[in-house]
This record gives sequence, structure tokens and C-alpha cells, in this order.
Amino acid sequence: MSRKIITITRQYGSGGREIGEQLAQKLGIEFYDNKLLDLAAENSGIHKNHFRDNDEKRTNSFLYLLSTTYGQGGIPFDDTLFFAQLNTIQKIASEQDCVIIGRCADYALRDFTGVINLFVSAPFECRVKRAIEVYGIEEKHAENYVKRIDKQRTSYYNYYTDKRWGQPQNYQLCLDSSVLGIDGSVKLAEDFIKMYYKD
Amino acid sequence: MSRKIITITRQYGSGGREIGEQLAQKLGIEFYDNKLLDLAAENSGIHKNHFRDNDEKRTNSFLYLLSTTYGQGGIPFDDTLFFAQLNTIQKIASEQDCVIIGRCADYALRDFTGVINLFVSAPFECRVKRAIEVYGIEEKHAENYVKRIDKQRTSYYNYYTDKRWGQPQNYQLCLDSSVLGIDGSVKLAEDFIKMYYKD
Repeated sequence: MSRKIITITRQYGSGGREIGEQLAQKLGIEFYDNKLLDLAAENSGIHKNHFRDNDEKRTNSFLYLLSTTYGQGGIPFDDTLFFAQLNTIQKIASEQDCVIIGRCADYALRDFTGVINLFVSAPFECRVKRAIEVYGIEEKHAENYVKRIDKQRTSYYNYYTDKRWGQPQNYQLCLDSSVLGIDGSVKLAEDFIKMYYKD
Repeated sequence: MSRKIITITRQYGSGGREIGEQLAQKLGIEFYDNKLLDLAAENSGIHKNHFRDNDEKRTNSFLYLLSTTYGQGGIPFDDTLFFAQLNTIQKIASEQDCVIIGRCADYALRDFTGVINLFVSAPFECRVKRAIEVYGIEEKHAENYVKRIDKQRTSYYNYYTDKRWGQPQNYQLCLDSSVLGIDGSVKLAEDFIKMYYKD
């Protein structure tokens, strides 16, 4: 049986993180979301706050880019963080079965065999509702907040990879989580993964 | 139990048509691929060859467009065919459970409730292989042929709808058919549909 490696790319508020967490539990394998950032910090020696503050977003300020080279051959700090994460993702996937949320993991593992890349979406209005009810975003800011995070993730992914975020050809399965709900989506993704790995 | 209406958008050579045909058999519901064109011909009084010759592609020739208004208020013939198909798709879906392949059916049925829109893709090299082995396309022309049909379908969809072809947010489920094969993909789509319709 080959190693089970599952990456999940998710629109903000689609419940992709929860689906990934439940999926990892059901499959009895490791789950990496923020834990990945701490591990990248540990591996690279860069403080974990830098990873959290810059998580899945690019700094667009030119002055910031000028001021934050990290002493590693003049590489912008954003890039240093990205490559530290990329190395950590590759290390994890070399050692264990896992579910990894976001952070261009599908790209980081593009040369690994047997990786399943999932994309979780949901209609905009469902994601706004979830942002308010589950993540506690203030109602008056929720629509803009959802749009902003989507834009950040898209821009981050498109900058660091040679692919476009959210194109079906990058994923083996794309799911609208509003159709079956979180539990139903977990069930379908589990069926897909078990059929693939013939488990 | 609500009506089961499933539309399938497919990359050329992905096996989306076969998946749809098997799915319709398993669900015991009607299957519409080329049959839709004949029905649109019957409903509109336009000869079926026109529908077949212009199936899912736009005529780009300016002279053609100038020369082929059809006497229905000066509407270009392409548009007349499109709207005849659209009406037929809506008529079918009002009357029976069905699986409909391509022809912007997801767009035609955008105001219907309970419609499941599937997108079937596969890596380019798998689709070229299928084009040669299953559809008998000459090997030396196969790559260009696959690219051309994809381009035609994309252009047709993007012209007639307010959406972009192949964006995950247009579909409830997107499947790479090369992962589970045709039979596995049918099984997964069937599970998804049965969970959704609570059947």
C-alpha cells in the first residue's frame, strides 16, 4: 500500500479545514494546518510568529520587500518563509501519511507519486454565513473579509507556483461542501481516497 | 423526492460521456447526448444536420454570420440553434429525471432547483491516449485535435453564458476520471448523487 498523502486547497469559509481534520481522523493519519507553520519555524530557526503573520499571503509593499531581506543571499523574507514551508511539507510527506491544508502543498508535492489533491469550495453566500457563525467575523465586514482572504490565497498561490489557484486540472477531486455538508463531504472524500488507495 | 437532474461538462477525451451514460443506467433515468440535438431539431423544425454540424462550437467567420441569419428577427443562425437547444434542455428537465451531456446544460438549468452539475477532467496525456484508442483519432493529429475541441467547447460556453467554462464554482463535483477510471468515477458520482437526493 502506498503512502496516503492528501492536500486540501480551500476557499475561505468552505469548511475545507474541518473536512481535512475529520478526514485525517477517519483515516488515522496526521493532520497539518497551523502545526505546519510551527514545524517550519522549528526546522528553519525563524520565529513562528513570522510564519503566522505572513501565512498564505504576500506582502505587496515595495518598501517592505526592500527592507526585509533575510541575509540568505538577499532573498526576500516572503520567499524565505515560503521555501522553509515547502521544505517542511516535503519532509513531512516523505516520512508519514498525512492531510495538509493549504500552503501550496499540492505544488510542493508535485513530484511525489500517489498524492491526492482536493479542492473544497462553496457558494459565496454560504461562506459568508460560515465566516460569521463559525469564525465570528462581524456581519458588516464578513463579505469583504471573505473576498480579501480568497484574493490573498489566490495571489499567494499564483505567485509561487506555475499553476492557477482553483483550476480543476490541479486537483483530483473538487467538492462544493454546501451540497452534502461537512459530514457528507468527508464521507465522499473518504470513499474517493479509499477507492484510490484500494484500502 | 425531488427530480434528479444531472448535467455533465467534460474535457474532450476525459470519458465524461461514458460516465454520464453509465450513471444514467445505474440511476434508471434518461440519458441525453446527441439525442438532445435530434429533439431540439424536432422541437424547432430546423433540420438535425444543422445541430450536428454546429454542435458545441461557434462559427467565427464574419461572412458566415452575415450570410446566415435565419429569418427569425435577424438572429444569427448560431444563436437560433443555441436557444433551440436551451429550450429543449429546459423542457426535458421539466418533465423527467435525466443526465445531460454538455451543451451548456448547467447554464440552461441555472434557475432550476436540485440540479447537480458535474465536471469531468483528466490529464492531457490521458485524453490524447483515449482520443486515439477509443475515438480512433490518428495518432499524429491527436494532440492538436484534443486541444481544438477543448478550445471550441470553452469558447462556446464562455460566449453563451455569464460564466467561465471549467471553473469549480460552477459545479458541485469535479472529478479527474484518470484517478478511479470510468467505473470508479461512476461509483463515486453515484454515491454523491444518492447522498444529495437522499435516495
